[in-house]
Amino acid sequence: MKVLITTVPFGEKNTLPLEMLQGTKVEYVINPLNRKLTEGDLMEMVHDYDIIIAGTEPITEAVLEKASKLKMISRVGIGLDSVDLIAARNRGVKVSYTPDAPAPAVAELTMGLLITLLRSVHVSNLQMHNGLWHRYFGKRIADSTIGVIGVGRIGTRVLNRTRAFGTPRLLVNDLSPNHELSRKFKLEWVDKETIYREADAISLHLPLTTSTKDMIKSKQLLMMKPDAVIINTSRGGIVNENDLYEVMKSGHLNGAAIDVFNDEPYSGNLTKLENCILTAHMGSMSVDCRTRMEIEATEEAVRFINGEALESEVPEIEYISQQHEL
Amino acid sequence: MKVLITTVPFGEKNTLPLEMLQGTKVEYVINPLNRKLTEGDLMEMVHDYDIIIAGTEPITEAVLEKASKLKMISRVGIGLDSVDLIAARNRGVKVSYTPDAPAPAVAELTMGLLITLLRSVHVSNLQMHNGLWHRYFGKRIADSTIGVIGVGRIGTRVLNRTRAFGTPRLLVNDLSPNHELSRKFKLEWVDKETIYREADAISLHLPLTTSTKDMIKSKQLLMMKPDAVIINTSRGGIVNENDLYEVMKSGHLNGAAIDVFNDEPYSGNLTKLENCILTAHMGSMSVDCRTRMEIEATEEAVRFINGEALESEVPEIEYISQQHEL
Repeated sequence: MKVLITTVPFGEKNTLPLEMLQGTKVEYVINPLNRKLTEGDLMEMVHDYDIIIAGTEPITEAVLEKASKLKMISRVGIGLDSVDLIAARNRGVKVSYTPDAPAPAVAELTMGLLITLLRSVHVSNLQMHNGLWHRYFGKRIADSTIGVIGVGRIGTRVLNRTRAFGTPRLLVNDLSPNHELSRKFKLEWVDKETIYREADAISLHLPLTTSTKDMIKSKQLLMMKPDAVIINTSRGGIVNENDLYEVMKSGHLNGAAIDVFNDEPYSGNLTKLENCILTAHMGSMSVDCRTRMEIEATEEAVRFINGEALESEVPEIEYISQQHEL
Repeated sequence: MKVLITTVPFGEKNTLPLEMLQGTKVEYVINPLNRKLTEGDLMEMVHDYDIIIAGTEPITEAVLEKASKLKMISRVGIGLDSVDLIAARNRGVKVSYTPDAPAPAVAELTMGLLITLLRSVHVSNLQMHNGLWHRYFGKRIADSTIGVIGVGRIGTRVLNRTRAFGTPRLLVNDLSPNHELSRKFKLEWVDKETIYREADAISLHLPLTTSTKDMIKSKQLLMMKPDAVIINTSRGGIVNENDLYEVMKSGHLNGAAIDVFNDEPYSGNLTKLENCILTAHMGSMSVDCRTRMEIEATEEAVRFINGEALESEVPEIEYISQQHEL
């Protein structure tokens, strides 16, 4: 068997995943382009491989078409928007993922971005590096209404932390309310429009699906308070990048923090805005979480190589929701 | 009576302090230069005033010499390094301060800077704005040893938050250990050198005194782990700015966050370092805390104007420690 590792970096801070693969005596190759692969890259690359240990690059029907030997995709991470699950199933390709490992790192980064935005740290930092001294007023979390859309593994952690910082009002939205969480964190379940209109800071913790794609466009951004801030550490495309640029350029919104983009590496218009924090899809990039993700995904690949049962196959609901979208 | 308000901004987000002064019918003037005043500025400005509502500008013996009518200094904030307390007392000038109001804002900013530094958000943000995409590895607080020097109002809050984020090891140092806090937050009281050598992130929450001035120079910085980060939201001068620049320029330390400077506005060498976060003395600049500070300092001035007893005079220990330094 041959394994293609498309996600980079891989095995860099902790070599255990590579040693695990070496232990199986299968041949493996790490993404030779050392960047996020395009559909075209993958189509040229995949024909020879039995297993892909995958990042967020697009494993589409066209890619699977070229991957005639492929039997398994082991996703390093939680999002499945990049994998055509139905096409994989139709070809008998199993798909696994690591849904728990990224959450602590993404949630903590989100908290850092939240405080940074509320206090204009990023703006002052840029200005100071250009010789400008201006003391910005900011808000404390304890003085802000926080809105969280998407209350899964990551959103729940963000709510927990935000509550600890003493926010007076936590507005949340998801497909259905979670009453246990509501009691624990004193949540207000509201519709998304209420969050847009009333929150001082909004954070998104959603998968990318046809219903979340372009969920936040000009209309929604303009509903937000003029000094609101928005954070997207989930998936590119949920906030329309061009609309965000146009709305912020017009002076609406106090700041935004965007870690995920439609096309990565990103080099679009948002780079022109000093009040927009941009990071290079680093949500899960704490050494501990990234290592855990790589190890879990490799363990799953090794199980497959050894003919053992998988432990973290993508659940049926993910197939159903992708099918439902089509 | 005439009141000089030297600290700016003042009464900007909440006009209550100005209304309180208007209610007393005294005349007041807000710093006409709209920047931090120098000793020279003050010497030219103070002769006519009975009360100064002061920021961190230097109220030295030479300034007091020119302030022949001065009867009271009401500090907006906690630090007293800028006021010559002994010289004030010798001239019968009362000094009050607002020791509790800034703490929540400074502590929260510190947490934001800590996460930002541990995850290289500031470096990625600068690079993305220059069209560069690099995914930085980082650390979670739960995977880091955190060192806090100075365990007063602000340091204690930082310890509380850091513990909530799950840090495995909290190293602390202050003049004497606080056993109640130790039990509550599972602290290790160690000497400063142990903190320099073993912490992944170090945060300073100290007053500026002769013993903390230049406390951290090249020697101490070089004791730190090569990938350690350091935060100073307390007072400029505790970390020697030039030494920090030279040490970081040589590639030692992963990052630093400096909110306070020897001379403010700051425009020194640190502005050349992309891994050094610089902010414009914004620790206490949340609207709620800043408002509380301004109101408390104004209330104290109004008490003095009305001949009432002061409620927040600087305690004797502060005079003793300044005298001790001389």
